[in-house]
Amino acid sequence: MIKAAILLIAPWSLMAYDLMPMPAKIQAGEGRMRIDRNFSFVQLSGYREERLEAAAARLVQYVARKTGIPMNPGVAGRAPEAPLIVYCDHASAPVQTAQEDESYRLVVTPLGAKLDAPNPLGVLRGMATFLQLIDLDAGGFGVPAVTIEDHPRFPWRGFMLDAGRHFMPVEDVKRTLDTMAAVKLNVFHWHLSENQGFRIESKLFPKLQEMGSDGEYYTQDQAREVIAYARGRGIRVIPEFDMPGHATAWFVGYPELASAPGPYQIEREWGVFDPAMDPTREETYRFLDAFIGEMAALFPDEYFHIGGDEVNGKQWDANPRIQEFKRAHGLKTNEDLQAYFTRRVQALVAKHGKKMIGWDEILTSDMPHDILVQSWRGQKSLADAARQGVDGILSNGYYLDLYYSAARHYAVDPLGGDAGNLSAEQKRRILGGEACMWSEFVTPELLDLRAWPRLAAIAERLWSPENVTGVADMYRRLAVVSRDLEWVGAQHVSNYNRLLERLAAGNPVEPVRVLAGVVEQVKDYARGDARPYTSFSPLNRMVDIVQPFGRDAQQFSALVDNLNAADYPGIREWLTRWRDNDARLQPEIAHSGLLAENAEISKDLAALAAAGLQALDRLQGVQPRTAGWVEQQAALLDRAQRPHGELLISVAPPIRKLIEAAR
Amino acid sequence: MIKAAILLIAPWSLMAYDLMPMPAKIQAGEGRMRIDRNFSFVQLSGYREERLEAAAARLVQYVARKTGIPMNPGVAGRAPEAPLIVYCDHASAPVQTAQEDESYRLVVTPLGAKLDAPNPLGVLRGMATFLQLIDLDAGGFGVPAVTIEDHPRFPWRGFMLDAGRHFMPVEDVKRTLDTMAAVKLNVFHWHLSENQGFRIESKLFPKLQEMGSDGEYYTQDQAREVIAYARGRGIRVIPEFDMPGHATAWFVGYPELASAPGPYQIEREWGVFDPAMDPTREETYRFLDAFIGEMAALFPDEYFHIGGDEVNGKQWDANPRIQEFKRAHGLKTNEDLQAYFTRRVQALVAKHGKKMIGWDEILTSDMPHDILVQSWRGQKSLADAARQGVDGILSNGYYLDLYYSAARHYAVDPLGGDAGNLSAEQKRRILGGEACMWSEFVTPELLDLRAWPRLAAIAERLWSPENVTGVADMYRRLAVVSRDLEWVGAQHVSNYNRLLERLAAGNPVEPVRVLAGVVEQVKDYARGDARPYTSFSPLNRMVDIVQPFGRDAQQFSALVDNLNAADYPGIREWLTRWRDNDARLQPEIAHSGLLAENAEISKDLAALAAAGLQALDRLQGVQPRTAGWVEQQAALLDRAQRPHGELLISVAPPIRKLIEAAR
Repeated sequence: MIKAAILLIAPWSLMAYDLMPMPAKIQAGEGRMRIDRNFSFVQLSGYREERLEAAAARLVQYVARKTGIPMNPGVAGRAPEAPLIVYCDHASAPVQTAQEDESYRLVVTPLGAKLDAPNPLGVLRGMATFLQLIDLDAGGFGVPAVTIEDHPRFPWRGFMLDAGRHFMPVEDVKRTLDTMAAVKLNVFHWHLSENQGFRIESKLFPKLQEMGSDGEYYTQDQAREVIAYARGRGIRVIPEFDMPGHATAWFVGYPELASAPGPYQIEREWGVFDPAMDPTREETYRFLDAFIGEMAALFPDEYFHIGGDEVNGKQWDANPRIQEFKRAHGLKTNEDLQAYFTRRVQALVAKHGKKMIGWDEILTSDMPHDILVQSWRGQKSLADAARQGVDGILSNGYYLDLYYSAARHYAVDPLGGDAGNLSAEQKRRILGGEACMWSEFVTPELLDLRAWPRLAAIAERLWSPENVTGVADMYRRLAVVSRDLEWVGAQHVSNYNRLLERLAAGNPVEPVRVLAGVVEQVKDYARGDARPYTSFSPLNRMVDIVQPFGRDAQQFSALVDNLNAADYPGIREWLTRWRDNDARLQPEIAHSGLLAENAEISKDLAALAAAGLQALDRLQGVQPRTAGWVEQQAALLDRAQRPHGELLISVAPPIRKLIEAAR
Repeated sequence: MIKAAILLIAPWSLMAYDLMPMPAKIQAGEGRMRIDRNFSFVQLSGYREERLEAAAARLVQYVARKTGIPMNPGVAGRAPEAPLIVYCDHASAPVQTAQEDESYRLVVTPLGAKLDAPNPLGVLRGMATFLQLIDLDAGGFGVPAVTIEDHPRFPWRGFMLDAGRHFMPVEDVKRTLDTMAAVKLNVFHWHLSENQGFRIESKLFPKLQEMGSDGEYYTQDQAREVIAYARGRGIRVIPEFDMPGHATAWFVGYPELASAPGPYQIEREWGVFDPAMDPTREETYRFLDAFIGEMAALFPDEYFHIGGDEVNGKQWDANPRIQEFKRAHGLKTNEDLQAYFTRRVQALVAKHGKKMIGWDEILTSDMPHDILVQSWRGQKSLADAARQGVDGILSNGYYLDLYYSAARHYAVDPLGGDAGNLSAEQKRRILGGEACMWSEFVTPELLDLRAWPRLAAIAERLWSPENVTGVADMYRRLAVVSRDLEWVGAQHVSNYNRLLERLAAGNPVEPVRVLAGVVEQVKDYARGDARPYTSFSPLNRMVDIVQPFGRDAQQFSALVDNLNAADYPGIREWLTRWRDNDARLQPEIAHSGLLAENAEISKDLAALAAAGLQALDRLQGVQPRTAGWVEQQAALLDRAQRPHGELLISVAPPIRKLIEAAR
């Protein structure tokens, strides 16, 4: 295993840069800038502001963490010239917008580095690049001499966090903002209300949080703190209040908003539910007018997200008064009724000085054009919107909670599919995308594990030039950025280790790690269908912590893809390990209530690995290639590729490939 | 390796409890209390206070973290009866003292648990025990039915943190208090001033922190925050202001306090230095009177630590006015002069309502008896003090910065050595002990790695009955408590993994981990002698992060100690791993400036392991036992047992043992 790993990833032999997202333009220089304790301050010149001072201090702190070299900015006698000199030309907008220049130029020479940017946003992006460039070689820590000219491909590069279904405390949000900044994401979309929880304090309607949150909500002070923290990192904060559906938690305190009489309880199940706001009563709009006004004042961003997705219409159908309203207003369908509601809400959002965002459903032909559509459906929605003159961002393909591999997310381009046929001008209406983290199966302790490192691949898709698409190189760099993210505060690696220990129940963790390294979750919504989950369900099983197509699976797959004879020993080492792991793991499974459900997949992995070893014997000529042998493996292979409860064997496809190669 | 590990530790086969410190009395019950989401609140009865409410909420949170089961105290519809019912009889002292009753009684049955204690301190200790009792078996998380009656052997169980040499931010201090509480330590001794830094804000003498700290100091508000945090966890906070030596940082702002004219700089080197306060000027005492008054008001504990160690007297010898003072006052030696100083300071401490603590040097025949001696020298000092009627605590043998094994610390008893000969009444003057963490080689990122898990073994020595001394069982339980400490916030495991990654410089971490698992630091002060360290030296090398006699070395040593034929495969697996590791590690060493110095020890480990394998061949009869073979290994063994720079091979002694067994 160890040897295989060395064969696979020996970064010192590669000249590529360990950056993610890759810059627009990068040119190698001569030599290397040394990082030592003189990196104790960053010199700011040109336009200055407190945010830049803080970013400079943070960069020094990050460099100290990454290198372990103490940087004490308070110590007298430091070098007169800063190793990194920043020039910032002018201020950015008082409230960050989607139209800002985030470009920067970074020049590193053995004598020092210079970072220039038109405004503080570019400085922040350039600092993130500088931090990633630091590495350790035989001579110690340093930065390769380089000239980088960089700017984002898309101005809107977001991450949506669902704090409704599982509450995410402020410290988790802040940590997420730190890590987002490290990969140059610039929009934090905060999903603040759901059937399962209303998560922000309203002073006008306090029963929203008092009755709708189990006590788990953000105060307005905390929201302001998060907004300031995000601005410090060049990140916009856009709140989402989902309506008219996904709103049960509102109705616990204010049942009169709903389309059927209450009382309502906070929803504990997952899914799409019947309760929806009553779009026919003026009181609903008076409430929303006041509420949107309150929140529009709290959240400074020019956009305001009103959700708008997944109304099943059942409450509307069952309410005679609503049926009568539809008839009276010539609204034929519930879609028409929702469109009526959305136009009314859009007017309120506009009245309070904001542009409305909503999911695909909000786009109707008579909607004003200064809205923005966030598509969970795909590029076609965005293309339709763009042709209507409406802006859009893509989220379809970027749902991190669906357990897709990084490569699968990476292949999705906001300008792909139907959007590829747009005119250049229409294409400009597609502003970028947002990765989404719906939290049915995500608690704070799982947040980083589910976001990282895959989110970095999406961040690259949204920042880097369109032609940066190599999957092997993406995975190589992803491993580096994954490790480095821990230095800016991510906990996906450290938490993974802790959670493996929990599964092992005091027994050796290694056999658990071996299995966990090559299993992954069933895709899309199959988990939720597999058993009756609620918001009380513990998420402490192997299926909660494994990575879709994780490092071990990636490495093995790459070996099988190449299938060089030189890699046979590496392939054999992996397969032997998996074959032998079951005997080690089963006694632990017998004593850990959390592992019990993994008994079968462990056995199947062992059987599959044994077949893989036979294939390898045939490839190496140790065993003769007998007729029909491949066909004899069919049952095993079929079984191995089917779901085992909520888990799949990540290496089933490459082992199948190996077996077929031995035909 | 994996198999070996399973052979070694299979906790499910052991009936012992995974507690540390072991309680005074424990009796097994029948069955098991299940832990599920109903553990969402703890019912408090009897005497109540805010500290208990917070502790109950914290326990619920810790249980949720340890199990991954969501406990939402805000959710309605929870079970009417709490799974854990607490009865507290009365309040503890308004300011925690060394005379308090920390006893508790914990009864766990399948139906629920009951914790009784005379006062909140016992409740806190009992909650720590309850948390440790939770484990996972085939049926899920639970607590074995049990009756525990517990109280500490010593009332003073401390941890001293040197925030002077390397500053430790408040968050690191708080994390340390959380982890201390988990093993029932009850004194946080905060070493706040040193030659290298004056670390707390004085409002009367602001130049102390402004000029003496590089800007790295605690504000008084932060100190109050730490004190309150500690009280919440049943921990006293005792500040130390070291004087008259170890005080260079004071003199940067107030050179007039010193015995030689300034100016002074913050010291950057480690060691014992000449500057000392001038004990002959009344101004010195006026300053100290005001300063001690200010700090005595800030720190509520009845004790106040004035240091008093390691004055080399050179400044005093060189100052004619001080020489004249000694003659005029009949002070023959510098020790006499220091005794004069200490009596004056003791009077000031007493005037401000406190009892003085100091290191061994403060004990002179004419000192009042209501002081306390902290011994860095050993039990003899404490026995001498006790015979004089003076209280004492032991720190000799508990210096965590000297890289001793847990077993070595564990063997040290405050009532051992000369103290064993005291009368029962005199023995009662020995109140306990304090582990010390001097921080020449400890930064915040290394703090947990250096403290844990070894500090837990010292905590057990100070809490548990005298006859709890089994080393093998201690190591078994230490591994469990080490893992569990991460759930209350310790970072020794997660940081270790991060720091191994840093060493590996992007290359596979496994070969680095293999070597790091079986090397340890040279002991005592040998590191400081090895090269010219200063406070600017990066502490980011392998020698900074390895554990003295860590898990791998423990497991291998235990196998060799038993030397059962059944363990031969396990022994072979370890040795093969070490023999083969060098070939994997050397290419990485060649590309990591941080690993370069480990090339030789890696080679020597491989050679030693190869010899161990030959010994095993002889033990197993695969090779004949040839005359003189053992003697031929002498040079190799000698070399392997010598320091390699600042590192030792932890498994050199057991491999020597194996080789000698093959004679």
